[in-house]
Amino acid sequence: MTSGDAPGTDSGVAGTPGGPASAVGGADLGLLSPMRGGAEQTGDAAVLRAMLDAEVALTRAQAALGLAPAEAGEAVAAAARASAFDLPGLVVRARSGGNPVIPLVEDLRKAAGPYGGHVHRGATSQDIVDTALMLVAHRALGPVLADVDRVVAALTRLAAEHRDTPMAARTLTQQAVPTTFGLKAAGWRKLAVDARARLLAARQALPAQLGGAAGTLAAFQPADGPGSGEPGGDLGLRLVARFAAEAGLAEPVLPWHVLRTPVADLAGALAFTAGALAKPAADVLVLSRTEIGELSEGVGGGSSSMPHKHNPVRATMIAAAARQVPALAAILYGSLCAEDERPSGAWHAEWQPLREALRLVSGAARDAAELLADLRVHPERMRANRTVSGSAGSAGALVDRALEEE
Amino acid sequence: MTSGDAPGTDSGVAGTPGGPASAVGGADLGLLSPMRGGAEQTGDAAVLRAMLDAEVALTRAQAALGLAPAEAGEAVAAAARASAFDLPGLVVRARSGGNPVIPLVEDLRKAAGPYGGHVHRGATSQDIVDTALMLVAHRALGPVLADVDRVVAALTRLAAEHRDTPMAARTLTQQAVPTTFGLKAAGWRKLAVDARARLLAARQALPAQLGGAAGTLAAFQPADGPGSGEPGGDLGLRLVARFAAEAGLAEPVLPWHVLRTPVADLAGALAFTAGALAKPAADVLVLSRTEIGELSEGVGGGSSSMPHKHNPVRATMIAAAARQVPALAAILYGSLCAEDERPSGAWHAEWQPLREALRLVSGAARDAAELLADLRVHPERMRANRTVSGSAGSAGALVDRALEEE
Amino acid sequence: MTSGDAPGTDSGVAGTPGGPASAVGGADLGLLSPMRGGAEQTGDAAVLRAMLDAEVALTRAQAALGLAPAEAGEAVAAAARASAFDLPGLVVRARSGGNPVIPLVEDLRKAAGPYGGHVHRGATSQDIVDTALMLVAHRALGPVLADVDRVVAALTRLAAEHRDTPMAARTLTQQAVPTTFGLKAAGWRKLAVDARARLLAARQALPAQLGGAAGTLAAFQPADGPGSGEPGGDLGLRLVARFAAEAGLAEPVLPWHVLRTPVADLAGALAFTAGALAKPAADVLVLSRTEIGELSEGVGGGSSSMPHKHNPVRATMIAAAARQVPALAAILYGSLCAEDERPSGAWHAEWQPLREALRLVSGAARDAAELLADLRVHPERMRANRTVSGSAGSAGALVDRALEEE
Amino acid sequence: MTSGDAPGTDSGVAGTPGGPASAVGGADLGLLSPMRGGAEQTGDAAVLRAMLDAEVALTRAQAALGLAPAEAGEAVAAAARASAFDLPGLVVRARSGGNPVIPLVEDLRKAAGPYGGHVHRGATSQDIVDTALMLVAHRALGPVLADVDRVVAALTRLAAEHRDTPMAARTLTQQAVPTTFGLKAAGWRKLAVDARARLLAARQALPAQLGGAAGTLAAFQPADGPGSGEPGGDLGLRLVARFAAEAGLAEPVLPWHVLRTPVADLAGALAFTAGALAKPAADVLVLSRTEIGELSEGVGGGSSSMPHKHNPVRATMIAAAARQVPALAAILYGSLCAEDERPSGAWHAEWQPLREALRLVSGAARDAAELLADLRVHPERMRANRTVSGSAGSAGALVDRALEEE
Repeated sequence: MTSGDAPGTDSGVAGTPGGPASAVGGADLGLLSPMRGGAEQTGDAAVLRAMLDAEVALTRAQAALGLAPAEAGEAVAAAARASAFDLPGLVVRARSGGNPVIPLVEDLRKAAGPYGGHVHRGATSQDIVDTALMLVAHRALGPVLADVDRVVAALTRLAAEHRDTPMAARTLTQQAVPTTFGLKAAGWRKLAVDARARLLAARQALPAQLGGAAGTLAAFQPADGPGSGEPGGDLGLRLVARFAAEAGLAEPVLPWHVLRTPVADLAGALAFTAGALAKPAADVLVLSRTEIGELSEGVGGGSSSMPHKHNPVRATMIAAAARQVPALAAILYGSLCAEDERPSGAWHAEWQPLREALRLVSGAARDAAELLADLRVHPERMRANRTVSGSAGSAGALVDRALEEE
Repeated sequence: MTSGDAPGTDSGVAGTPGGPASAVGGADLGLLSPMRGGAEQTGDAAVLRAMLDAEVALTRAQAALGLAPAEAGEAVAAAARASAFDLPGLVVRARSGGNPVIPLVEDLRKAAGPYGGHVHRGATSQDIVDTALMLVAHRALGPVLADVDRVVAALTRLAAEHRDTPMAARTLTQQAVPTTFGLKAAGWRKLAVDARARLLAARQALPAQLGGAAGTLAAFQPADGPGSGEPGGDLGLRLVARFAAEAGLAEPVLPWHVLRTPVADLAGALAFTAGALAKPAADVLVLSRTEIGELSEGVGGGSSSMPHKHNPVRATMIAAAARQVPALAAILYGSLCAEDERPSGAWHAEWQPLREALRLVSGAARDAAELLADLRVHPERMRANRTVSGSAGSAGALVDRALEEE
Repeated sequence: MTSGDAPGTDSGVAGTPGGPASAVGGADLGLLSPMRGGAEQTGDAAVLRAMLDAEVALTRAQAALGLAPAEAGEAVAAAARASAFDLPGLVVRARSGGNPVIPLVEDLRKAAGPYGGHVHRGATSQDIVDTALMLVAHRALGPVLADVDRVVAALTRLAAEHRDTPMAARTLTQQAVPTTFGLKAAGWRKLAVDARARLLAARQALPAQLGGAAGTLAAFQPADGPGSGEPGGDLGLRLVARFAAEAGLAEPVLPWHVLRTPVADLAGALAFTAGALAKPAADVLVLSRTEIGELSEGVGGGSSSMPHKHNPVRATMIAAAARQVPALAAILYGSLCAEDERPSGAWHAEWQPLREALRLVSGAARDAAELLADLRVHPERMRANRTVSGSAGSAGALVDRALEEE
Repeated sequence: MTSGDAPGTDSGVAGTPGGPASAVGGADLGLLSPMRGGAEQTGDAAVLRAMLDAEVALTRAQAALGLAPAEAGEAVAAAARASAFDLPGLVVRARSGGNPVIPLVEDLRKAAGPYGGHVHRGATSQDIVDTALMLVAHRALGPVLADVDRVVAALTRLAAEHRDTPMAARTLTQQAVPTTFGLKAAGWRKLAVDARARLLAARQALPAQLGGAAGTLAAFQPADGPGSGEPGGDLGLRLVARFAAEAGLAEPVLPWHVLRTPVADLAGALAFTAGALAKPAADVLVLSRTEIGELSEGVGGGSSSMPHKHNPVRATMIAAAARQVPALAAILYGSLCAEDERPSGAWHAEWQPLREALRLVSGAARDAAELLADLRVHPERMRANRTVSGSAGSAGALVDRALEEE
């Protein structure tokens, strides 16, 4: 048999030939990423929807400022709503220019009929992709924050309930001195509270992007010259403000095509959150070991070969997510170094890692909420395992103080 | 309008509710990764096919060694071929156990009817996922190697043709002394040749995985005791050899559930290749600058706002890919540190980064082949730009020597 | 000649044998890291000083709360001041326990004579290393912030001075439409302002660390039971507050041995700053190319082979630093996932990357301040290079708005 | 007290003012990196020695080919040997040009008196830094390979001795089915054998670097024109061959200033080795947990707060090293993308990460050799802990096969 090839012809999943169909045949639904979440907010359909939302917001903003006929906004919105955009086709057509906006604008212009000329007017692809990604992040972080809230709530309960449940503290894998499970849970909670604060701050700051070809807003000027003489201030700046409001995003100080603060801050918040949720997961993985048994997952996973096993699957998923996000964040931080008015690589390199980081954190938050809401604590095993004696010191007072923090 | 939410309801791409459909609605076809390639070899359908191939190879191998009825192999192969496996459903069902093999085996057993008991017998999920990923890598690297061959061929031609075409060498961005474009092309070629050697070595070594629950091959023993007394040697080891042959992969020395040499080597070869192809891309990006103009892409990309522009899109795509692969490789190298007989995170963290690295290198190889086959060289601009004089030393002799290397 | 070995015996730098001297012989002064800064604040001597400061602060805090004789604090301070601690010896002795505090405490106890028993009482090594690293970070960030202030000042001046200096905007390496150098400088400034805000926030939050063996403050209780009955509140918590004040650091909510928010936040701020400073460096590298010449470094570097060259060395150093910091930050974010009450690897893995990130950002801030204070702008080349015409749109208004931001 | 500043004035380690002394005051001896090794081979003194070795090899090679007087080689060697080069001064002087070769050549020329003109003739700084780093790598990998040999030897012994020692296999933290400690040790050994092969291959391939200003060897031509007409072949190429032989390194096909295969391959081999050694460390960390106790370190480390503890310090050090090396390797792989004939950042970004990766792997190999030579195995605990029954299948046969591999 020829190496690695023959069995492929045997199985029930047909190979898919090239062309548009190939994009569908090559689709990634997450089969190899059970630790992911947020599919609805981050999939290609959601990105496409967000790009259309950005285009609609742009035409509406222009209509509001008299740069387009009053009815153009709704006409483009209707076109965006009514049309069946061909996602696989867009994926294929995106290749030649290196971004999906070029073919999308063609289609949307066609769909908008007489108002087609008011689609994407004065904008550059990056205005749309960046705004869309901020919308995607905004939408994805909503459920993430709800899940982190559930994590905090579960940990508040666990910390209070086990404020005085004694257990061995372990350092460098060895039992050290006593602590309480309440203090451990309060520590986990502190990290979740910190993550929530960072996610909220990053989410609130997510800005719209609008600058035109080189970030000067040049194409949004009135016919008779630059907008700065306009009553009410510079027209370009007013358009940005209106566009941001239409898109439901923050107004940027400057076009940020090559000033990637929003992406870097998001990277930091996501890497932080993945790590913050991975701390309780790491402890669950240790403490649910067969020989320790002080914690167990309420609903553990099975095994294809050993049905008797009760695996800490949620904790494993979170741990696996947390191993990936810092590296993705490193790519994103690296893209701050972006030459010119649009870099040849640094910007494009952000798209997929940002989306994948959002997905991994979405999944980790979901899994952490499930894990902690349903965690089984076994105080009797904590007692039985303990080989160290002494007091837990200020553990109770520390729990009390930690729980005061919102 | 509520921040970031309202526009979503306006557009033409319907949101998708939870449940299996959600996996489809959240599909990633590559809309945000125009620098990717290899969709057909690396998509979820290809992974599913490879997992089925692995299961079929296992039953066939068992049948060949008398551990299953002679006809079981073909029966399972037929089941794998005939059934319409529900990919979105598998994605959703994969979540509870944290891997897709558990639900797949259920379905395949059902499909195999009376031979269902011979599906996955004695194997563990990791045997199937690892074997499938090696098959996916094997299949994806075929086209990559073909593209790298095209790169080498194009560069052989360019180096020979421009053996003596003078141009300025540049160091730390400044013109330094003369060189030749031939020497530059010969250097690019050397990197491509090195990449090819590393990819070939990694591909040839890709092993099948078979160990059973904990890598001892315990469940593959004959009813009456361990297989080591068997004529022909240990039965478990013979089964591994036969399984590898059926799967079209190399035979491993040991089950490598937690000995991740194959994945680490693949990571290294992929990171190397991405970087090797990014060197010519980086030079094209410099030398095709408006003010330099010594090279240009044959088919550059357009712009949604500036139709007059001729962007070096292929080079940009390669540069963007190369910014991502080293970080993905770092995740994979990190997974060498895998505790126990199956780690709680390190293994799962490999799946998606490995696949994404394969995709990025697939795209980079395709784009590099296109870029270099069609590269426009402008010797007159090279001459006109030169502000430094002198000889190009041994440049010609170096080109000659470099081209001797296969 | 034996490969790679013989020449070593020839040169003027003597090899150094094992033992303590080996630590000195192996010293890293930065010969391979000209892009580093902050040596005085981050070197081993500074770390040693910070560890001693932490020990002194601990004894003083205990004295203040009656847990040690009133004079113990000053006695230990005097011992810390007067003794000549053997740094190379500490390096060697640190190996067996895996941290430098164990031997340091031995030496400090000896030096403190009758008060030796009040050195490190109740503390764990991590209390001292973490507090020391926060002190090191605090001290290193002082000069960094001063340098970032200089960057902001230089860019305020450049943006104002060149508010209306026209130049070509470039996207994907190609001239696109006009912009102004003022808008470019205002964008650089925005990133520096953002970096300053993130550094300041991270610096102000740097907390002391005090928890004892397992973070319960157990060893700081009065002889007759836990401190929570104490008038004035829990004694352990009061000690932490006093310790933080003595150390000049923020008071933590909880001992953060395995709640690594401070380190992760620092990682984010450092990665952000490196990237933020690398944006102007990247533009300088493009715009000072021989063929472009729109900018040049005031004091460029020479070359060992080409004395005529004027290399953009400062920009190169910043770019080189920025390539390293995100990966170091990824290590630090990864350490959030810290099992138990002290992890077996994650904590130790932070020490050197955190220090190296501080050094690289120190150097980048210094180099950016030098680069931008002395940047040569060549408006005539900007004019001559321009191949695109049109207005710079709202560039002026954008500069005005950006400069309003403090 | 001013935040973070006052205590600094109290302690016994004097701050150091600017200037050359500052480099010494800021020295890094490894106080924060107890997991490091190879100080003698990788410290600044060793780098300086290697740079001098490179310069001596260059003059010798030129003398051998008649490009310098016959006695110049020994004269320069004597100057390199006899002079006391001022390392701290070089560190400071390296800053202005961004590399240490420029000031070193000044000093060496002075020391060589009448032969000063034959120092560094025709070379560029990168020739010397790259050659020196390859020498440093070559010298550092010698002890690493010896330590890996010790690891393999210890594991050969452990695998044979415990071929049939039963223990529980654990997957996803849960006891799964039986295995043997011999199979576990054989697996560790396989990874060490793989690491050794990769290190050996990388070490043997380490090439000298010689290209001159732009890699054309232009400055090494005879006075009367390019060397290619020379009897014996192109003079430049012959000089490279002789230089490589003098330096004790491999001869490169082309100057590799921007063809970074050697550095990337080294990065891969180092990341592989760190991970390969971290697998047994991870298992020791699990199996020496208080509640498991199946393994223990022969010489564990103590604790500054809990003298009774027996910490798995060697395993912790290896784990901490392995968390850092992949990120450093990612930086190095990223530097393959190097524009021009010398890039403005990518090359400089390699120096310190390469050295740090060498140090971490040196330490991990040393610690692994110590750990495994002295590992305590507790078969009775393995028996007592086991909650799963059944046979260990082909474990014995697998051990036998694995041990056949050299």
